[in-house]
Amino acid sequence: MSTFGTIFRVTTFGESHGIGVGCIVDGVPPNMELTEADVQPQLTRRRPGQSALTTQRNEGDVVQILSGVENGRTLGTPLAMMVKNQDQRKFDYASVSTAPRPGHADYTYQVKYGTRASSGGGRASARETIARVAAGAVAEKWLDQEHGTKVVCWVSSIMDIDLPRDVALALENNPPTREDIDTIGTLVEVLPAASDKQDQGYFIDKDGHKYSLSDGSPLGNKAEAGGTEFTEGKKLYTRCPHAPTAARMCARIQLLRTQEDSTGGVATCVVSGVPVGLGEPCFDKLEAELAKAMMSIPATKGFEIGSGFAGMRMRGSEHNDCFAAAGNGLLRCETNNAGGTLGGISSGENIVMRVAIKAASSISQPQETCTFDGEKHTLSTVGRHDPCVLPRAPPLLEGMAAITIADACMRQRARTGAPLKTLPQVDRKRKHDEVTK
Amino acid sequence: MSTFGTIFRVTTFGESHGIGVGCIVDGVPPNMELTEADVQPQLTRRRPGQSALTTQRNEGDVVQILSGVENGRTLGTPLAMMVKNQDQRKFDYASVSTAPRPGHADYTYQVKYGTRASSGGGRASARETIARVAAGAVAEKWLDQEHGTKVVCWVSSIMDIDLPRDVALALENNPPTREDIDTIGTLVEVLPAASDKQDQGYFIDKDGHKYSLSDGSPLGNKAEAGGTEFTEGKKLYTRCPHAPTAARMCARIQLLRTQEDSTGGVATCVVSGVPVGLGEPCFDKLEAELAKAMMSIPATKGFEIGSGFAGMRMRGSEHNDCFAAAGNGLLRCETNNAGGTLGGISSGENIVMRVAIKAASSISQPQETCTFDGEKHTLSTVGRHDPCVLPRAPPLLEGMAAITIADACMRQRARTGAPLKTLPQVDRKRKHDEVTK
Amino acid sequence: MSTFGTIFRVTTFGESHGIGVGCIVDGVPPNMELTEADVQPQLTRRRPGQSALTTQRNEGDVVQILSGVENGRTLGTPLAMMVKNQDQRKFDYASVSTAPRPGHADYTYQVKYGTRASSGGGRASARETIARVAAGAVAEKWLDQEHGTKVVCWVSSIMDIDLPRDVALALENNPPTREDIDTIGTLVEVLPAASDKQDQGYFIDKDGHKYSLSDGSPLGNKAEAGGTEFTEGKKLYTRCPHAPTAARMCARIQLLRTQEDSTGGVATCVVSGVPVGLGEPCFDKLEAELAKAMMSIPATKGFEIGSGFAGMRMRGSEHNDCFAAAGNGLLRCETNNAGGTLGGISSGENIVMRVAIKAASSISQPQETCTFDGEKHTLSTVGRHDPCVLPRAPPLLEGMAAITIADACMRQRARTGAPLKTLPQVDRKRKHDEVTK
Amino acid sequence: MSTFGTIFRVTTFGESHGIGVGCIVDGVPPNMELTEADVQPQLTRRRPGQSALTTQRNEGDVVQILSGVENGRTLGTPLAMMVKNQDQRKFDYASVSTAPRPGHADYTYQVKYGTRASSGGGRASARETIARVAAGAVAEKWLDQEHGTKVVCWVSSIMDIDLPRDVALALENNPPTREDIDTIGTLVEVLPAASDKQDQGYFIDKDGHKYSLSDGSPLGNKAEAGGTEFTEGKKLYTRCPHAPTAARMCARIQLLRTQEDSTGGVATCVVSGVPVGLGEPCFDKLEAELAKAMMSIPATKGFEIGSGFAGMRMRGSEHNDCFAAAGNGLLRCETNNAGGTLGGISSGENIVMRVAIKAASSISQPQETCTFDGEKHTLSTVGRHDPCVLPRAPPLLEGMAAITIADACMRQRARTGAPLKTLPQVDRKRKHDEVTK
Repeated sequence: MSTFGTIFRVTTFGESHGIGVGCIVDGVPPNMELTEADVQPQLTRRRPGQSALTTQRNEGDVVQILSGVENGRTLGTPLAMMVKNQDQRKFDYASVSTAPRPGHADYTYQVKYGTRASSGGGRASARETIARVAAGAVAEKWLDQEHGTKVVCWVSSIMDIDLPRDVALALENNPPTREDIDTIGTLVEVLPAASDKQDQGYFIDKDGHKYSLSDGSPLGNKAEAGGTEFTEGKKLYTRCPHAPTAARMCARIQLLRTQEDSTGGVATCVVSGVPVGLGEPCFDKLEAELAKAMMSIPATKGFEIGSGFAGMRMRGSEHNDCFAAAGNGLLRCETNNAGGTLGGISSGENIVMRVAIKAASSISQPQETCTFDGEKHTLSTVGRHDPCVLPRAPPLLEGMAAITIADACMRQRARTGAPLKTLPQVDRKRKHDEVTK
Repeated sequence: MSTFGTIFRVTTFGESHGIGVGCIVDGVPPNMELTEADVQPQLTRRRPGQSALTTQRNEGDVVQILSGVENGRTLGTPLAMMVKNQDQRKFDYASVSTAPRPGHADYTYQVKYGTRASSGGGRASARETIARVAAGAVAEKWLDQEHGTKVVCWVSSIMDIDLPRDVALALENNPPTREDIDTIGTLVEVLPAASDKQDQGYFIDKDGHKYSLSDGSPLGNKAEAGGTEFTEGKKLYTRCPHAPTAARMCARIQLLRTQEDSTGGVATCVVSGVPVGLGEPCFDKLEAELAKAMMSIPATKGFEIGSGFAGMRMRGSEHNDCFAAAGNGLLRCETNNAGGTLGGISSGENIVMRVAIKAASSISQPQETCTFDGEKHTLSTVGRHDPCVLPRAPPLLEGMAAITIADACMRQRARTGAPLKTLPQVDRKRKHDEVTK
Repeated sequence: MSTFGTIFRVTTFGESHGIGVGCIVDGVPPNMELTEADVQPQLTRRRPGQSALTTQRNEGDVVQILSGVENGRTLGTPLAMMVKNQDQRKFDYASVSTAPRPGHADYTYQVKYGTRASSGGGRASARETIARVAAGAVAEKWLDQEHGTKVVCWVSSIMDIDLPRDVALALENNPPTREDIDTIGTLVEVLPAASDKQDQGYFIDKDGHKYSLSDGSPLGNKAEAGGTEFTEGKKLYTRCPHAPTAARMCARIQLLRTQEDSTGGVATCVVSGVPVGLGEPCFDKLEAELAKAMMSIPATKGFEIGSGFAGMRMRGSEHNDCFAAAGNGLLRCETNNAGGTLGGISSGENIVMRVAIKAASSISQPQETCTFDGEKHTLSTVGRHDPCVLPRAPPLLEGMAAITIADACMRQRARTGAPLKTLPQVDRKRKHDEVTK
Repeated sequence: MSTFGTIFRVTTFGESHGIGVGCIVDGVPPNMELTEADVQPQLTRRRPGQSALTTQRNEGDVVQILSGVENGRTLGTPLAMMVKNQDQRKFDYASVSTAPRPGHADYTYQVKYGTRASSGGGRASARETIARVAAGAVAEKWLDQEHGTKVVCWVSSIMDIDLPRDVALALENNPPTREDIDTIGTLVEVLPAASDKQDQGYFIDKDGHKYSLSDGSPLGNKAEAGGTEFTEGKKLYTRCPHAPTAARMCARIQLLRTQEDSTGGVATCVVSGVPVGLGEPCFDKLEAELAKAMMSIPATKGFEIGSGFAGMRMRGSEHNDCFAAAGNGLLRCETNNAGGTLGGISSGENIVMRVAIKAASSISQPQETCTFDGEKHTLSTVGRHDPCVLPRAPPLLEGMAAITIADACMRQRARTGAPLKTLPQVDRKRKHDEVTK
């Protein structure tokens, strides 16, 4: 159903083409400073139309807090938030009333409920996720304030383009900031004015590196870092915090766009500064709750924690993470194949998750399928479709991770009635810049 | 916590070295024929010591029904079941009282609860899963009776040994029976009597094919199918229903045993005959509940459904499953990249899941770790350890899948108040035998 | 917390002086016709200012459906509804910032949350109940449509004025309609124009009977039924469907108003046409869920079902309800001391509940209490207060009863997967009119 | 269903004539000393056959802890407990297989589940409550240890015999100990040896006061306190801690026994030393949870808190409890009409509840009812029946109150992450002895 969590509990509502979408967040700790300004940034990050279109949709997805806050502080009562659907123009209804769209939920909704939202994806639309992002922003703020816990997510693969293995690992150990993810992962498409010189265009990153439009490979020349070409150009967000990989992703996405096709990818989400002792065996293990949280996100097809599927090829003697003193009475894992939990309980190490997201189901090319009545039918859905949703996924995964961890903290506090502990900050000099270039 | 499910609801109890383990299953439909004989077979399949040791432990893990059944039929009241811990001899306590075992939950339990079972894995032990298997057997029986739904699980990878891709796919489309899994996946290790001729031994499958002891590669010669060598030999269960792959797995496991090491693998679980319309968006999507169910199992590190992580490399035009008439008013998906759900709701197609299970954490070789107090310590745990738990995993995954699907059926019935529908049986001639040889 | 129900599940939000109050109703069956017009009437019935003030607040408490409905039919997705707080003028803050109001929740909220809504009752205000009434209206519509189940509630006692015992019993057996409750229970206060002839005023009921202003005793004279005096006068709603008792209640309430005091009473709620078999022992018995529902309503101090507290004085031989054939394969209870349940499961007979509601805590007269800091303090809260909230309680109790019964129906459907049954309508000639005069 | 609680969560199982009854208690705080000796006393207090029959059933209802405890301390893992049904001799099945017993749940179970325990009350039997008492004993121990919270319950009315009003109030303000309840409320029936002198018998209390066998009125003569007549006689427990009232109750119960009839009564349950701030508005208010807990107990027909039904006749100016400084930064209510909660949140004052329990449904005299098939039938159930279950109710009500309050404590700790506070002990000189004589 539409409620998630035991103590910190989120209930959402809203269809894609109705009045709006929103949520009630119950169990928000009282006396926390909170205004719309704490929630809006993540909503803005998940908004469609950021890439190359940012200014046109600048006004979109504005959140309003309806209850639970007074004079800028939470009351401990249910926090209701709503985002109006400004773009209520009807979806291309004719195209989907006859035949269920392959890869979409039109058919299963129809069978399950005996009806479905006639005007678009309804509840199965990505628009539903706005409410999760809003609730997640509240959870995140509390986690950070209370325990110094940070949640970040980035794009690690798009189609067959993966972050180099060493970069991926370095990022998991020393997660980048959101600012890094947003800036390093953003390229500008620079096209010459004359249309006959299109092949002289390139992508450029914030540091002035240029990349081929056709496949994202590095070009020798380098422009001024953050120069006017960059700041004034049409931005392509990838949220992959490694510019050379991001460039290849940009090229691939633009190619798919011209082909009226789409693809998927993998997002990596890391939670650091996690209190030790979270998770409630034997069914509500922390990774079980996180798996549910992530797999409840539209289009997800896989979840892994720590070593994941690759790890099952390791030997026990390699996979076991040995312990060492952490310095504040706690222990530390010297490696993190476990990905931050042991026996379903957080160890304090970074929780490292990867989520597989399938190719966007909405494509413009015709598909040979059948109608709701079983008659053969060629389905063509007009409209601009997003070739890859990955770049918009991070705020959503961050939100769901934060909601899950916050709830786990509160459940553990119910048990102990005592402060939770986190591992001391390790002085791992951020080697991020070296690694990611 | 230790309760799973909304309407069909399982609550478990029991530590590894206490009086016993068991469960209360609430929400069991009344008037269902049920005795211990319905539950015991799956418990027997998960029992340790089957491989090459079967007769020695033949009496183990006997379930008793304590309530909820009268005259062989369920009453609709809570069904309590218990399995006594016959082997209560104390665990090698001294070895783990000083230092937490790497890869185990000793440390996190200690921090979370401020205590832990001193006599072994306690609640984090695999023994906890007995209660799930027992409850799962009840769910399975109901699903089969009510909807013809079948749940099977097999081992598809151990370490780097994978089922060939085409075999894997054929099995997912036409899942084998449990009998197939148990017989095709079982090999006998035939050793010559004289110890100096050890290198003349071989593995033999039920059809009489022989395989190398060193790496499982096929040997040219063939014996009588199901002959005395097979029926009287020491059996090695793999639960991988493809004998050539199973042979390689056996060789690998036996090697790891001599090396005092362990490894992991992947189990594939398929549910067929699933009613259409199960799953409760937006948070209790069917795949989300299944992911939670599977990731709550000890040692799991990853979950995928349908195309999974590999699928994210596909194009939308390839990944989308187009529809066709199914013949009873329902539609069918012509491919099954989705893995049986759309938008979190079952489509009626096979639900195909894969679960990554890490290397067994218990290894005999010494490990450089530290004590609970943070002092450096070399940990050696004596005792015979299982180099790979995968062969024992299928009854457990089947049980958790069945519990999840049964609960989803009941939740959907609450909505409709009407019978649920499944896809008509397709006359897919079982090509299993050709494929798997 | 702010969620109620298992399958039909209501989550509410909103403080008394914020933007608005509302709810998300999850689990609403799809394909049900539903618009704001189905919800508004009950909201209008609970609205303050109906009595003698109706026209001044005519615009208040307008509900808007935000999601879950398309083209006038439910989608099966979460139904969100909101009522804006039109009257956001600040509460008399100064009077309550220093000292917690006796009988109110100011103090306990402050201790529990470490804060409280500074601008009035916040979440503890009666305004919170709007969301319950809205959700209840949806539950009621479904119950009536699906099973012919009806929920009504009336005022049976105010202070020491009780419905005569025989009238009370007759109403419980043959519950009146809401229209009866609203019309029979409404009197008009007729005052002569000249203020020095105030003692010549009277109350008049819809049938033209007149009653003393001082104590509600009948006056001999009778006016035209529903005459202009009645239709144009200032109406006093009691929701006690027995005019002579209602008249006494009106006199008492008006007296308390002049005394700046308040009082409480008892409301009786009856659900008829209840399917047999609802309620989930052993903890979620139907009466247990109903008790929780009712005792979660502000100001309630007691709950009883069937014979209630008086019944404990009966002998078993009197109290036991013997059975008889009902005519459709079901049995009927010949008496209804049980109040519609046996062993926590509905028997199909009327569910008869009585709820004690304490005197309104807000009174204008000074109270000797202390400040939040423990200093002695004389508290005087200015403003017009309602001397008795009972007349506004019925829509709220009806709503909570309907939500509880609807949820119980769905839980039972999950078990059976079969239609639920109700007792056949008994041709009990409505003796209501005779009885109630 | 059979699970109660959110964090401290009890799940029960067992029918009256099966192998046994028991429970799993999840969420038990770790490191608490706990053995069967902590649980057994309350089970012994609820056991049938204490009155005048104690020795015959001395061995009954022995609890065994199956899991969750090691070396006498809780592990924080699920605590399973079981009581075997020693007396599995079959119920008089023939008498109830034809016709449902009036006042019992035979009929509604049959309709709800389509079956029922053929061998007695099954799950609807009072035997189910054993599991609650066992779980309650654990909750109680934790509450007392952690917060000094005490839960006691006594019988305040049987049929028309009530504790005098002033005594009742004094007990609510200064609750007696369990020892007081058990000793003051126990009388011995002294009968002369010769059967023709039966009218020379009397009841005698522990202090040597004698009371008439016919109506319990005091007899002038006084024997030695705790003399041999008392210590060696057949004890009648009433659990009404006021001997003169208890004597009248004994006489009434014995009379009903000869008449093959039964009756009900009221039990009062008081929780003192309650932390301030418990209860989760708006639906999970403390009194709402308590009402559900109590109304889930078999045979309960009413619940009230504080002033209850009588209180609704009071004026607001009387009913409002004014505040005063408590001395440790908290406030105290100068009166306690509220009964320990305000706005659904505990104020720290005694929680005072009264529960109405109907006449025992099992009576030996014939009843004119009908068969399951609707045929008229005269039902006579042979066997010795308890004329009044009230004296056995206190341990059960205490248990359910303790479970509810313990869970509320943990939910509040989840919010605050800080220690809970209780009111300082008031030096209210125990006036109990004066009052109760």
